[in-house]
Amino acid sequence: MDEAMDPAQARVWLATAVEEARTGLAEGGIPIGAALYGPDGTLLGRGHNRRVQDDDPTMHAETAAFRAAGRQRSYRGTTMVTTLSPCWYCCGLVRQFGIPRVVIGEATTFRGGYDWLARHGVEILLLDDPESIDLMRGFVTEHPELWREDIGDRDG
Amino acid sequence: MDEAMDPAQARVWLATAVEEARTGLAEGGIPIGAALYGPDGTLLGRGHNRRVQDDDPTMHAETAAFRAAGRQRSYRGTTMVTTLSPCWYCCGLVRQFGIPRVVIGEATTFRGGYDWLARHGVEILLLDDPESIDLMRGFVTEHPELWREDIGDRDG
Repeated sequence: MDEAMDPAQARVWLATAVEEARTGLAEGGIPIGAALYGPDGTLLGRGHNRRVQDDDPTMHAETAAFRAAGRQRSYRGTTMVTTLSPCWYCCGLVRQFGIPRVVIGEATTFRGGYDWLARHGVEILLLDDPESIDLMRGFVTEHPELWREDIGDRDG
Repeated sequence: MDEAMDPAQARVWLATAVEEARTGLAEGGIPIGAALYGPDGTLLGRGHNRRVQDDDPTMHAETAAFRAAGRQRSYRGTTMVTTLSPCWYCCGLVRQFGIPRVVIGEATTFRGGYDWLARHGVEILLLDDPESIDLMRGFVTEHPELWREDIGDRDG
């Protein structure tokens, strides 16, 4: 088994995802950012939600970071870092490709498939990061319809 | 509740997905195709796996069709049609966005999250389509390493 995640290291990596989220917000988009790190700590890819910017509903933060990492033969030892707890779509990505660890900025605004991932052996580190929470809370309050669209909330 | 899917209609829609899969194969890619149909039978989007063509590991057939459909406020009443049973990533997409029906060409080569979707109330129609089976069987035999890469099979 891999070693357990070092929280100090995780916070450094989360800063990359938060930077992506801020970029997304500045572009008028949904402020969720992510980054995929390799087993040796190399940044493989980073990205942010691009629904608004590209009119692309497939580009959640996690899928954007995964795409930016290009084709990888294996995701063994990699870590997905995201400002917000991943939705079912992004949890499916993590499980299908065997990404063993997920660092999550916050799961307060949205919990998604957090527990499902944990049940299926994915190591999760929840950081309860105030910046990640503030970014999402502010956005959801100002643009509830965009947020509901992004998670396919039919009752919104 | 929506009416149960008409198998004759489903076969007509599957032909679109098979056409996409054939296009992907002709481009040197992984021959999986998909299409998203609206409640009234309008084709919202169609696409095929683009891992090889675009070096893009996020573009499975289902996500490509979903992207091609652009931003939708709701997926109520839509049907995802795919030549191959969807992986966890694409099942997560279906569940997150509340796509209520999935038409599957074949689940022989790969079953993915078929049972999970069914358990969570997604209506599934499996067509056991010989063309879909032949396309995948031929490809997996000729390019096993590409297929394993596409589903994140670490033991391959």
